[in-house]
Amino acid sequence: MTTEIKKIGVLTSGGDAPGMNAAVRAVVRACIYYDIEVFGIYKGYDGLIKGNMEQLYVRSVSNILSRGGTFLLSARSKEFRTKEGRKQAYEHFKANGLDALVVIGGDGSFTGADIFSQEFNVPVIGIPGTIDNDLSGTDFTIGFDTACNTAREAIDKIRDTASSHERLFFVEVMGRDAGFIALNSAIGGGAVAMIVPEHNWSIEALINRLRKGAANQKASNVVIVAEGCHLGSSYEIAAKVKEQLDYFDIRVTVLGHLQRGGTPTTLDRVLASRMGVAAVEGLRNGQSNVMVGIINNRIAYTPIGEAIKTIKRLDDEEFRIAKILSI
Amino acid sequence: MTTEIKKIGVLTSGGDAPGMNAAVRAVVRACIYYDIEVFGIYKGYDGLIKGNMEQLYVRSVSNILSRGGTFLLSARSKEFRTKEGRKQAYEHFKANGLDALVVIGGDGSFTGADIFSQEFNVPVIGIPGTIDNDLSGTDFTIGFDTACNTAREAIDKIRDTASSHERLFFVEVMGRDAGFIALNSAIGGGAVAMIVPEHNWSIEALINRLRKGAANQKASNVVIVAEGCHLGSSYEIAAKVKEQLDYFDIRVTVLGHLQRGGTPTTLDRVLASRMGVAAVEGLRNGQSNVMVGIINNRIAYTPIGEAIKTIKRLDDEEFRIAKILSI
Amino acid sequence: MTTEIKKIGVLTSGGDAPGMNAAVRAVVRACIYYDIEVFGIYKGYDGLIKGNMEQLYVRSVSNILSRGGTFLLSARSKEFRTKEGRKQAYEHFKANGLDALVVIGGDGSFTGADIFSQEFNVPVIGIPGTIDNDLSGTDFTIGFDTACNTAREAIDKIRDTASSHERLFFVEVMGRDAGFIALNSAIGGGAVAMIVPEHNWSIEALINRLRKGAANQKASNVVIVAEGCHLGSSYEIAAKVKEQLDYFDIRVTVLGHLQRGGTPTTLDRVLASRMGVAAVEGLRNGQSNVMVGIINNRIAYTPIGEAIKTIKRLDDEEFRIAKILSI
Amino acid sequence: MTTEIKKIGVLTSGGDAPGMNAAVRAVVRACIYYDIEVFGIYKGYDGLIKGNMEQLYVRSVSNILSRGGTFLLSARSKEFRTKEGRKQAYEHFKANGLDALVVIGGDGSFTGADIFSQEFNVPVIGIPGTIDNDLSGTDFTIGFDTACNTAREAIDKIRDTASSHERLFFVEVMGRDAGFIALNSAIGGGAVAMIVPEHNWSIEALINRLRKGAANQKASNVVIVAEGCHLGSSYEIAAKVKEQLDYFDIRVTVLGHLQRGGTPTTLDRVLASRMGVAAVEGLRNGQSNVMVGIINNRIAYTPIGEAIKTIKRLDDEEFRIAKILSI
Repeated sequence: MTTEIKKIGVLTSGGDAPGMNAAVRAVVRACIYYDIEVFGIYKGYDGLIKGNMEQLYVRSVSNILSRGGTFLLSARSKEFRTKEGRKQAYEHFKANGLDALVVIGGDGSFTGADIFSQEFNVPVIGIPGTIDNDLSGTDFTIGFDTACNTAREAIDKIRDTASSHERLFFVEVMGRDAGFIALNSAIGGGAVAMIVPEHNWSIEALINRLRKGAANQKASNVVIVAEGCHLGSSYEIAAKVKEQLDYFDIRVTVLGHLQRGGTPTTLDRVLASRMGVAAVEGLRNGQSNVMVGIINNRIAYTPIGEAIKTIKRLDDEEFRIAKILSI
Repeated sequence: MTTEIKKIGVLTSGGDAPGMNAAVRAVVRACIYYDIEVFGIYKGYDGLIKGNMEQLYVRSVSNILSRGGTFLLSARSKEFRTKEGRKQAYEHFKANGLDALVVIGGDGSFTGADIFSQEFNVPVIGIPGTIDNDLSGTDFTIGFDTACNTAREAIDKIRDTASSHERLFFVEVMGRDAGFIALNSAIGGGAVAMIVPEHNWSIEALINRLRKGAANQKASNVVIVAEGCHLGSSYEIAAKVKEQLDYFDIRVTVLGHLQRGGTPTTLDRVLASRMGVAAVEGLRNGQSNVMVGIINNRIAYTPIGEAIKTIKRLDDEEFRIAKILSI
Repeated sequence: MTTEIKKIGVLTSGGDAPGMNAAVRAVVRACIYYDIEVFGIYKGYDGLIKGNMEQLYVRSVSNILSRGGTFLLSARSKEFRTKEGRKQAYEHFKANGLDALVVIGGDGSFTGADIFSQEFNVPVIGIPGTIDNDLSGTDFTIGFDTACNTAREAIDKIRDTASSHERLFFVEVMGRDAGFIALNSAIGGGAVAMIVPEHNWSIEALINRLRKGAANQKASNVVIVAEGCHLGSSYEIAAKVKEQLDYFDIRVTVLGHLQRGGTPTTLDRVLASRMGVAAVEGLRNGQSNVMVGIINNRIAYTPIGEAIKTIKRLDDEEFRIAKILSI
Repeated sequence: MTTEIKKIGVLTSGGDAPGMNAAVRAVVRACIYYDIEVFGIYKGYDGLIKGNMEQLYVRSVSNILSRGGTFLLSARSKEFRTKEGRKQAYEHFKANGLDALVVIGGDGSFTGADIFSQEFNVPVIGIPGTIDNDLSGTDFTIGFDTACNTAREAIDKIRDTASSHERLFFVEVMGRDAGFIALNSAIGGGAVAMIVPEHNWSIEALINRLRKGAANQKASNVVIVAEGCHLGSSYEIAAKVKEQLDYFDIRVTVLGHLQRGGTPTTLDRVLASRMGVAAVEGLRNGQSNVMVGIINNRIAYTPIGEAIKTIKRLDDEEFRIAKILSI
């Protein structure tokens, strides 16, 4: 891959995450710093297929560092899963004189990037932007820290009510098939228990934990439920607990989409800034079909295929911590 | 009512609201300022029935000004609705030497207070503590401003995602039979429409509004639904809209109990502080069976019976504002 | 004033305040609702003098409701204080076909508006946008509630440190010659004392209050100082207290400009929305040279000359509350 | 060190940091989990010298996870720097039957811990609690993430005003001799420049950067100044810049102690929870005179002497990022 990179396209794809704007800003400014032209592609792959893009300048990304969401807009594209769709995308890619593509998104977006890169021999680099933190090849994904803080702030508020009324609350957090948000919310929010996809807990174990807490005069309780958990939805779990512990006044709150929004935390802004610059520098150095990540606080490039193949697992140590602290 | 007040009991009752602690603190400090002993009664009327109370001092209320919930705990008491229950309560009231009672809560709590006051000729004064703002006799209830800010912050976050994906969100807020939180969240959150109990909107009118917004290239939309609204739950409304406007990508978020918690806003702290002092001063001045409120920024005492009988209505002017701004 | 209003100019002037954007948005949308063209004038009167303005549409004000500051920019203009400057402004006013002007700002800006309106017989309406809340003719100015919350949040944080180290903190808040932010921050932040321009306190009285608190085992203390206070700066006051109470570990924090920024609270957004609509409706109804305000929760129009002449005073009741609660 | 640990004392020392309470809670709960008695020592080493301590239980640490500051109070102790003072401390240590000590604080506190541990052959373990992040042996100290978010939120607000008025702001942040808060605030807050102790910048270089920004039509600017920086205070730097760039409207804000307070972020709570548990487990496993840290997301124990000797340096990569993004 010896072609010099003179023009880069950048898009955001899949579910939005706080810090995506900060990443776009960093890509744009790094391009300008290195004398590369940069185009913003709107609505993810859909914009590439339709040629919906325009050049971005330093001033195009003024005042977006602090904003949640993505000003490039995002979407899931069915057409890009077809050979025909990707062919159209490539035609617009060439017609606009692009030399390389930066894709900010999660594993679904990276699967598409992987195929596109190989099919048309196009340099593509991925930046992990998803609140779920479920990608290998990076310790943190952009948006995860913000989502953990949003969830935890909501839990702090719910705890006020739980304490005042001596209630048991089930709070359902996002994370798809991964329990990262749940684990951090549980430790950070002081939950009595958490139910995550990675851990084979039973309703009985949960009930025992709650009985033990009640014996310790723990008057109020918050249980965190990850959305992808194997025991059913938070409403179903609450109903099963209610059957056996009917003296509890039980409530359920599903935090929902508010976890995706909000101004990014400092950590997410710094992470997005570092990754955005590293993506441009990676392309300049001939990297292709890789995802940029932070491993042990250093920039690392991992082949996209590897990043989306390996499942990142919750840390056993933190499981243990959560259990010790929930007494 | 010429008996001098030497000892006052204070309790929080019904759903908790941010600022209840600030109100208790003000009652306690005003008592001490006026050389009156003050007792905290735990878990609302239940604590009065069981004699679950203790004396409070200046230091008892240190560091609670900023905390959501109520450190006196709250509960709904079925027993207090019975003559027998109230009799027991009165016995503990006398046994502890109390001369008067301050009840911080909403209309259900005030109904009990009203009966108790008349039944045993006991000076009782109510402080309106409820996020719903549905009590006559005061422009604002304690907790309402905080709940409006919590709801609006959540809507700000949801809007990030709505904008990024060009989606339509239905956000359900609290307020029981009143639309105050909904109205303020809708104007403050820039919603395209709101559905409130006080206003006889139809699904058809909502759909027309949404079609008009779409015609104006309004790509994303947030509709606020008050929990007590006549058109059904937010999920039911969303389903009906989906039937006729199937090109929208529709999501629903029910904010739930997080609206009850959190550190109170400055306005709620000042409101609670003024009302707490005014409750003690009212009792000293011979007021009984009244609710303290703020009307046109002045302290006002309204007979409890009147405060809970008259329904406070949403302001027509603000309805009009919401409509004009949603174009 | 029977001319029909077909084209309105809007500008923001003086110190910025959170909610100014919400007010501009409301003016723009109300204009469009009533079929009036609306022009945004940049950098306050300076933009009027230079003809720096452009037409605004519904989409021009998308996504600004939640932003602090003012996207129209603001400035103080020396030229507008000269007859020559105002004459140039009027020429651009006519050249752009404007029929009326909406000025969002504080008393300095309104003084200019008053003269301009009379000099050229131009319909002008003022919207009170200042964090200081020092204007007569309205119970609240736009930005005041947000500033009170920002200051109080900072005080909550400083209190953590004050409590942990048993320190005495002097916190200086904004408000120019008025003590509104100071009073609300003091009650809302649980301060032991406050020093405001309207109240003739002495260093001796402050020292007595602090000694009394120390006698009550009040280990940590926060004193709020209004910037315009008569006893000197917060640093000077702290130094004088230190001379006599040298056993205190004393620190000073000047909150500064962060009080002017941030996303507006729900109250400020609703206030700005109501006032923006009312300004346009006022002009349509022939109002001129008035300030729109909210008095006792109703829209009210006050002659600008009167609004800036009368000084709004702090409420004595709230003074009393602050004193009672500081024991 | 084969003595079984049956009773542990825990104290917080030096400047307070958000998350210290979460660390104490984790120490207490881990002790109870492992059947160890735990004593809270008040006001740091001062409490050890005076025997000011008491046993803590699960309920003693209820509801403190979310609070800033430290409920054990903190202080700097001159006496503990004397042999006589430490001897008294040791006598209380033995008299209360303590077997080991957990010290939560920064490098000053650890220097004392190091001497005490060696002098009396007492097992001591340190937990890094300081907003400055300047300790080796851990990637993050407790409180650093919260302080970075507090500073950045303030900068976001100041930027609103800077943008609205096209001003240049100097914002001074904490960090003692280290630039960690400054660096993260600068990248996270989108500053045009930062001045940190580790980097030998000159006023001339700063002025060149500002001139370049002005040439790029960068209308508003924020410069971050670390408190320990070599070019003088933020006021002095601002004055020097003003001399050469007098067309700028320049303001200074010193964030001050509010950076030390506030509810800890999720990251700080999880960090404190992990470290608190690891401290107890380390003592159980015979560790002594070490500091617990997180290195590359794993718990690590570093000899205290080493942790306080080596200076942690700012990362060059992040310097580079900050420079690239400030164009």
